[in-house]
Amino acid sequence: MSTTPAEAEAMRRALVLAATPGVPLGPNPRVGCVILAPDGTRVGEGHHRGAGTPHAEVAALADAGERARGATAVVTLEPCRHTGRTGPCTEALLAAGVRRVVHAEPDPTAEAAGGAAALAAAGVEVEGGLLAGEAYALNDAWHFGLQHGRPFVRWKFATTLDGRSAAADGTSRWVSSRPARLDTHRLRGQADVMMVGSSTVAVDDPALTVRDADERPLAHQPLRVVVGRRDLPAERDVFDSTAETVQLRTHDLDAVLADLFARGRRSVFLEGGPTLAAAFVRAGLVDEVVTYVAPMLLGGGRSAVGDLGITTIAEALHLRITDITTLGEDEETNVRITMTATGAA
Amino acid sequence: MSTTPAEAEAMRRALVLAATPGVPLGPNPRVGCVILAPDGTRVGEGHHRGAGTPHAEVAALADAGERARGATAVVTLEPCRHTGRTGPCTEALLAAGVRRVVHAEPDPTAEAAGGAAALAAAGVEVEGGLLAGEAYALNDAWHFGLQHGRPFVRWKFATTLDGRSAAADGTSRWVSSRPARLDTHRLRGQADVMMVGSSTVAVDDPALTVRDADERPLAHQPLRVVVGRRDLPAERDVFDSTAETVQLRTHDLDAVLADLFARGRRSVFLEGGPTLAAAFVRAGLVDEVVTYVAPMLLGGGRSAVGDLGITTIAEALHLRITDITTLGEDEETNVRITMTATGAA
Ligand SMILES: NC(=O)c1ccc[n+]([C@@H]2O[C@H](COP(=O)([O-])OP(=O)(O)OC[C@H]3O[C@@H](n4cnc5c(N)ncnc54)[C@H](OP(=O)(O)O)[C@@H]3O)[C@@H](O)[C@H]2O)c1
Ligand SMILES: NC(=O)c1ccc[n+]([C@@H]2O[C@H](COP(=O)([O-])OP(=O)(O)OC[C@H]3O[C@@H](n4cnc5c(N)ncnc54)[C@H](OP(=O)(O)O)[C@@H]3O)[C@@H](O)[C@H]2O)c1
Repeated sequence: MSTTPAEAEAMRRALVLAATPGVPLGPNPRVGCVILAPDGTRVGEGHHRGAGTPHAEVAALADAGERARGATAVVTLEPCRHTGRTGPCTEALLAAGVRRVVHAEPDPTAEAAGGAAALAAAGVEVEGGLLAGEAYALNDAWHFGLQHGRPFVRWKFATTLDGRSAAADGTSRWVSSRPARLDTHRLRGQADVMMVGSSTVAVDDPALTVRDADERPLAHQPLRVVVGRRDLPAERDVFDSTAETVQLRTHDLDAVLADLFARGRRSVFLEGGPTLAAAFVRAGLVDEVVTYVAPMLLGGGRSAVGDLGITTIAEALHLRITDITTLGEDEETNVRITMTATGAA
Repeated sequence: MSTTPAEAEAMRRALVLAATPGVPLGPNPRVGCVILAPDGTRVGEGHHRGAGTPHAEVAALADAGERARGATAVVTLEPCRHTGRTGPCTEALLAAGVRRVVHAEPDPTAEAAGGAAALAAAGVEVEGGLLAGEAYALNDAWHFGLQHGRPFVRWKFATTLDGRSAAADGTSRWVSSRPARLDTHRLRGQADVMMVGSSTVAVDDPALTVRDADERPLAHQPLRVVVGRRDLPAERDVFDSTAETVQLRTHDLDAVLADLFARGRRSVFLEGGPTLAAAFVRAGLVDEVVTYVAPMLLGGGRSAVGDLGITTIAEALHLRITDITTLGEDEETNVRITMTATGAA
């Protein structure tokens, strides 16, 4: 593989574009594209903004206009050759007169693959694999869905250093520091489902929206999903008009995930409560755990994690740490530990 | 201040020498010294090995022999000018014909200070402050003792991500990974007291020794201290001959620390159990908390931290994170979080 430093830089920019927050994704991957003139200057860029909208390549070509002729398209995913709701990108690239295409990941879907070969057959120079790892990571949930046929489940909980989520009298404002809470909103924004158990809605009445640092809800919101059979008062915040909400009146978590997958949802952000989260853990349906640890001791109070049906140390649920990040400074410092279930794909 | 790169390198070496593990410290600071020939080559080195043994400078001068004449002594603490069990170092340096002295920290004790001035008065070039922060950190416990008149208390506990130290049936081997357990032994080796409550001795029968990776006890061991009034069976491991042991038959923790300070002990490594540790926390006598977090969930079982008498979130004990370190790899990864009590000096 041979690519230029300008192409690598353009790919980094394309990855940033692809990761633009607030894009309603549904069952589509995040894709970004940058058009480079022969002298290496950027003449166009674009990213995919959700089902039914132009693919990243088409958006970038439109941005570049006539300057796309003889140019290089740098794109995070192999251009598709299938006709979905939008036409194939390979044809758009050929029509625009692009001379060279550099992509990161090969398209792993049966119906869209073959774009690179089609372009090469039409005389376009094609290079694949530039920053492929980063591009893959960008679409974790999408890849997960292709492989497992269900949404990826990320369970988040906040805890004191001694495993508590609230003091003995039930007070819990705030166990996490403000930087950790802001980070939680960032992660919420990466998911397309926000999920809680019905008891959390009954007791805590959370809004389950993604909000900015000023507590204003973002324009695009994940689907809010409440799991549980009980009837809930309609005036609960989760049923307001800020975002879509569904209640799934079942305890069958496979059915819950199948329903969401059928709705085009690929990633679930599970915020609790302890009972629903423990049921997901026991069912082996938690793929990633994100824990915010506050350097605070309570010595008692409500446990952050519910009963997992574990009685002896040999049955302990072992996780594999993938990231440790310090959030905030001084007394606001919290530690975010991200883990995958051991043995998970 | 003007020092050479060779002197800075020598100071780093002197700091390493000073931190040599297994030195019985008692009430003395850790000190290291390197002798540099005028061309910058190291011609001698030494460190203080405990009360009644030669000071670092004297050891390094002995190592250098005649080569000390006209040389530079690089030492982590300002040479002392008082006569304790050993003579003043200022005189030894002058007698050896040292031309220049570079030290890190000024001596903070009233009786030993003034060494730099005495050397300068005798015509020796003196530079202070090189890597002073590192040198100060090396003798945390000693400085703490000078300021507070009691030993520094470091409390260590290991916990699962959800605040448990053992499963519901009491099994707990192993909550920490092997790298975390080795690290614990390293920290034990830095203390001059290993402390537990009497119930831990009664129930768990720990040896409380510092052992190497092959489970062999190190030659030098901290004093083992058991706190509690009950009579304990003499055949408990803690009473074996591997190290010295005392039982302090009181619940008065101020008295416990005063007793240990009078014995020349400056740092306590408190390993539990939860009851004694909680009593130290409630008494405001924990200066540093070291927690090993294992990415493991139990969802129940024994709490890692005992009752702290806290009932509402506003009373939570807030700590300040000073270090986060990842220990081990893959499934052996544990996170060590080090914290100081907020507001502590
Ligand atoms: N006052 C207190 O002492 C106390 C104690 C604990 C918690 N809380 C509050 O309640 C909140 C949540 O606690 P939580 O853990 O009970 O709430 P949760 O996990 O949010 O909700 C539990 C509910 O989820 C439903 N559910 C759906 N699928 C399930 C499955 N597979 N297994 C089990 N249940 C399933 C059940 O509701 P349906 O019955 O509707 O089917 C269940 O009762 C906390 O945030 C806290 O504020 C208060
Ligand atoms: N079997 C179980 O279910 C169970 C439950 C908990 C713990 N354990 C075991 O016991 C071990 C330690 O538990 P623990 O927390 O009880 O032990 P601990 O903290 O090691 O010892 C507690 C004892 O320390 C003494 N003590 C000294 N100063 C004190 C003070 N200021 N306040 C209170 N007590 C003071 C008291 O003993 P004196 O009475 O001698 O004065 C007290 O009973 C654990 O590691 C575990 O293996 C077992």
